[in-house]
Order: sequence, then structure tokens, then C-alpha cells
Amino acid sequence: MATGSRCAACRQLRKRCTSDCIFLPYFPPNDPQRFAVVHKIFGANNASKMLKQVEEYKRGDVAESLYYEAQCRVEDPVYGCVGIITLLQQEIYNFESQLAKIEAQIQLLKAQGVATPSH
Amino acid sequence: MATGSRCAACRQLRKRCTSDCIFLPYFPPNDPQRFAVVHKIFGANNASKMLKQVEEYKRGDVAESLYYEAQCRVEDPVYGCVGIITLLQQEIYNFESQLAKIEAQIQLLKAQGVATPSH
Repeated sequence: MATGSRCAACRQLRKRCTSDCIFLPYFPPNDPQRFAVVHKIFGANNASKMLKQVEEYKRGDVAESLYYEAQCRVEDPVYGCVGIITLLQQEIYNFESQLAKIEAQIQLLKAQGVATPSH
Repeated sequence: MATGSRCAACRQLRKRCTSDCIFLPYFPPNDPQRFAVVHKIFGANNASKMLKQVEEYKRGDVAESLYYEAQCRVEDPVYGCVGIITLLQQEIYNFESQLAKIEAQIQLLKAQGVATPSH
């Protein structure tokens, strides 16, 4: 295969890219950063194992989620995407409190609505 | 250092564990699974780099979030903890819809409350 068509992984790892390369469909040469960040966080060997262990039709999602996780870890070296989970859980907690307050407000309005006509 | 006091990482990697071992404070020998799962997903070298690149007082949180992420990836090899983020975002979306409906309900109740006394 010509050098120009090597995938981003084989380019970075300076390897020959064969047609059965596990990275080829998910790490195109025009987006070297995508592989670089996955390589930095998970390592090429681990990423390759994680791709290979699932059925082929799921590998696009594996590559995408590995890239997302790796990107999060680069942006937040302490918490990675666990930091996002914590934020979202906090947001859900806030929604729950907000809903509880509003439910109480509705009960009050309903009670007033029931009481009003008899005055 | 005696074999018995090697950290979980040095035990698994069959290395000598020195008092300045980067893994020692965060991967105690009594929880070998904790290091095993981080090693499986990130690799010992990457995990070591990620611990070393932050200040010492943040390393406990790095180890904890790496363990959480790795555990998620073992449980869900396709989406890892990105699957949890997607679920939480869906939950937040549902809360938002629920709140919008309830707000509309309140407006209705208020309008009825205002209208009722004049009848």
C-alpha cells in the first residue's frame, strides 16, 4: 500500500498499513490528532485490543468513545470524563430538587383552587 | 522492601517496589483488581505518566478516576463511561421536558386561580 494511504495510526507508529489494519477504517490519515490522543491515553496496543474484542460493526463506536474519553483526559488530566459524569449528576440532583419544589407549589395552587370557590 | 509490602502494580508487573514507587500510595497490595483493571485499559506506563504529570495531592483523584473509567470500559467494551454520559444526558433531557410540562401546568393553575374568584 502506498505511503499516502496509510492510516493515521500507521503513520504515527511508522508502520506499514495493510488492508486488514485494525485502525484503518476508524483513524483516517486526514485526522492525525484523533489517533494521537487515543495513543497518548490508551496506547496503540490497548486501543487495538479494545477494537478487536468487539464485533466489526461496533468498532466505529469503540473508536469514537475512546477518542472522546482520551480527549476528556487531555483536557482534564485529573478527572477525565469522570469529571463530566460528576457535573451531570450534580445537574440531575438540581433538577430533582427543582421538581420537588415545583410539585409542592402545584399542590399549594391546587389546594387554593379547591378552596377558592367556597369563599 | 519486603515482598509482602510491594504495591499491587509492582506485584502484577513482578517488579521491585521502592518507597518512591508512583503506584504505591494509590494501588495497595490488598486490592490487586484495582490495578489490574487500570493496567488492562490504560497500560501501566500510561497510568504512571498520568499520575506523574499532576501535583502529588491530585494523584489520589487521578488514580480513582482512572479506575472508574477502566471499570466502565470493562463493563461496557463499546461505550465505556461515555455510555454513562449519554444516559445522564438523556435523563437531563427528560427532566427538562418534565419541567416544561409542569411549568405549563402551573401557568394553567395560576390562570384558573386568578379567574375563579370573579365567577
